[in-house]
Amino acid sequence: MSPDARIAVDAMGGDEGLATMLGGVAQARRRFDGLRFFLVGDEEQIRAGLANHPNLTAASEIVHAPDVVASDAKPSQAIRRAKTTSMGVAIDLVKQGRAGAAVSSGNTGALMAMAKLALRTMPGIDRPALAAMLPSLGETDTVMLDLGANTECDARNLIQFAVMGAAWARTTLDLASPRVALLNIGTEDLKGTDKVREAAAMLKAATHLPLTFSGYIEGNSISRGDVDVVVCDGFSGNIALKTAEGTARFVADLLKRAFRSSVRSKIGFLISRPATELLRGHLDPNNHNGAVFLGLNGLVVKSHGGATERGVAHAIGVAAKMVRDDLTRRITDDLAHFEGEVAA
Amino acid sequence: MSPDARIAVDAMGGDEGLATMLGGVAQARRRFDGLRFFLVGDEEQIRAGLANHPNLTAASEIVHAPDVVASDAKPSQAIRRAKTTSMGVAIDLVKQGRAGAAVSSGNTGALMAMAKLALRTMPGIDRPALAAMLPSLGETDTVMLDLGANTECDARNLIQFAVMGAAWARTTLDLASPRVALLNIGTEDLKGTDKVREAAAMLKAATHLPLTFSGYIEGNSISRGDVDVVVCDGFSGNIALKTAEGTARFVADLLKRAFRSSVRSKIGFLISRPATELLRGHLDPNNHNGAVFLGLNGLVVKSHGGATERGVAHAIGVAAKMVRDDLTRRITDDLAHFEGEVAA
Repeated sequence: MSPDARIAVDAMGGDEGLATMLGGVAQARRRFDGLRFFLVGDEEQIRAGLANHPNLTAASEIVHAPDVVASDAKPSQAIRRAKTTSMGVAIDLVKQGRAGAAVSSGNTGALMAMAKLALRTMPGIDRPALAAMLPSLGETDTVMLDLGANTECDARNLIQFAVMGAAWARTTLDLASPRVALLNIGTEDLKGTDKVREAAAMLKAATHLPLTFSGYIEGNSISRGDVDVVVCDGFSGNIALKTAEGTARFVADLLKRAFRSSVRSKIGFLISRPATELLRGHLDPNNHNGAVFLGLNGLVVKSHGGATERGVAHAIGVAAKMVRDDLTRRITDDLAHFEGEVAA
Repeated sequence: MSPDARIAVDAMGGDEGLATMLGGVAQARRRFDGLRFFLVGDEEQIRAGLANHPNLTAASEIVHAPDVVASDAKPSQAIRRAKTTSMGVAIDLVKQGRAGAAVSSGNTGALMAMAKLALRTMPGIDRPALAAMLPSLGETDTVMLDLGANTECDARNLIQFAVMGAAWARTTLDLASPRVALLNIGTEDLKGTDKVREAAAMLKAATHLPLTFSGYIEGNSISRGDVDVVVCDGFSGNIALKTAEGTARFVADLLKRAFRSSVRSKIGFLISRPATELLRGHLDPNNHNGAVFLGLNGLVVKSHGGATERGVAHAIGVAAKMVRDDLTRRITDDLAHFEGEVAA
């Protein structure tokens, strides 16, 4: 994959509509030097929308797709219309090698199903996983996977997630041997399900993997920055991720209520506003938008359905960084080097 | 169970030691009128400790137990010393009907194992569950279970958790038909594991249960107050609970950093301190301390190992309220009334 490959953007997906997607692409274009795009969707609408973004026109090629995947479409329905939908055509551009990555804010289940069908799973990987970089108190973000692609996982799946997550941390966070932990309900050896314990035993034994196995991690430590990669099945991972989002919003709401509770605290709030704005920025999901399907022969980034322009720009930035780091090849190399260990 | 029954307190369990436990009991005594206690543990130490709490002496009876369950003891080890440990003796007082409930800050696994062995599971319940009241943006707290007693659960277990959680919400939150939801990774019918979907179908069909089934709830909505009871397996429940705790602390740490980032924000912080103190109080785990083992023939409350005196007092308050509400009988009645539905 050429490092200056274009990013294919599903311009029609997401709850916020075409204008937000184009606004996000335009922001990404300004923020990341030299990025170029395929804008996939209704040609006429995209052309009209581009009128507001003169900086995009030269950097973009419009690829027409007449249909859109509905937000409530079942994956099985969506797959049948892969060739005519903006989501399907964006993924196809990756498959053809014309785009380095696809970005969509559309239906997650459909995106996963289409991407899997079109790009196929990497050799050595049984199931792709949905991964994201989460904010932490540490020096860098924390990679977490699976976040919902696989409701149930066996020990072998978890090992493969560990290798893929570590490869992402090595390339994107520039860590030689990322610290990897399995999400569990305690840190003692006996805790958890058979699958988690089996995966722990395998990771402990596989001493040549390009990662440092840190044992188990509990939910309260995910954001502490003690480890670089948190590995879990898609059910508990999705619940942990959404609970973290919900709790952050809950605390912010309580804080708002507290600041409004008296004139005195309102004044204090106004004075300390730059500080609370800093916090708001740090917690805003748009500043962490962009989950990645790891384990496919091609890069696909899922942007949140309700992402703002800033969120879309961030997701595109995630995609661009992965393209430049040649992430797919890095993961393939890791898997090939350590195939014996991973298979064992 | 007499509503003026004593609470049996494991005075030796927990990381903070006897003084904190006694301090907590003394606080509870001041806060809740008429409470009386068994203080279980080393008689000499307890007697010496009571010298600092004259208000406790008349309300307490010391029950000697020479041993303590270590915080890292395996449940199987702890069980063998049930008759000589403060934790085991406290539970035995409940079994004998001398105490209305037992409260311990000791080793959770040991407490669960001992309580199950001594008190036995209620008729109609396959497995007890660990439940807690969590803070929410709604009018009342939210009951959540299982929080870690059962790593894996089938649909039947989940239904029984729903009935027990609803019974707790009915008695303690005074709700006629609590809204009950299953924790899942999406709200559509097709989402989740087979077990969760099966439990949903059963709850939908069982229209005579004393609860309103609200379908699925995602992690980001747990604290919104949209439902009164959140039901899940112990693995994802424990991860959600700890992730929520960790995220709340993470946001609080970021807020602290933000307030310290400039002189201006430090001043703002000082002015709005009453507001942030309010928030701190709302989020302090000590103000929500006290998880309950539901489904046993007797009440056992788990206080956090690191709970402060205020935390211990809160857990004792939870126990006292359950004793006064005669929770065990309420759950038994609910199960008997709806046995056909629950069994189906």
